[in-house]
Amino acid sequence: MQTEEQLLVKIGSTIKSERMKNGLSQADLAEQSNLHKNFIGMVERGQRGATIASLQKICLALGISLGEFFQSLNL
Amino acid sequence: MQTEEQLLVKIGSTIKSERMKNGLSQADLAEQSNLHKNFIGMVERGQRGATIASLQKICLALGISLGEFFQSLNL
Repeated sequence: MQTEEQLLVKIGSTIKSERMKNGLSQADLAEQSNLHKNFIGMVERGQRGATIASLQKICLALGISLGEFFQSLNL
Repeated sequence: MQTEEQLLVKIGSTIKSERMKNGLSQADLAEQSNLHKNFIGMVERGQRGATIASLQKICLALGISLGEFFQSLNL
């Protein structure tokens, strides 16, 4: 099993690629998920762990479910 | 979208039912996921939110992936 740091980096980079697939900036995603832009940046860089509730908001804004998100990560 | 409290209760009750399906006590699950028994209890009651890393450990001990876990919750 990966370390917690590796998990956060993996989650962050997936959020970033999904965000870019949707043509959204970090500010767009922050607005649509009702979270702070700096928080989105830190989560994408793996510097901060999102709670499940925050991750659900992010996934909702990206148009994917938490299930699909983690399936895509093979987690 | 449900409130954060509702989300935590939903996650907790699913962990409990999966644990019981596996015939595990909270102490067993705590040991197998390398988390504290009290923490498992609070998460199951929805009183505490598990981080994604902790939830991954719990799911691993229950023999399911995070993807399957959230798919089963329709989240």
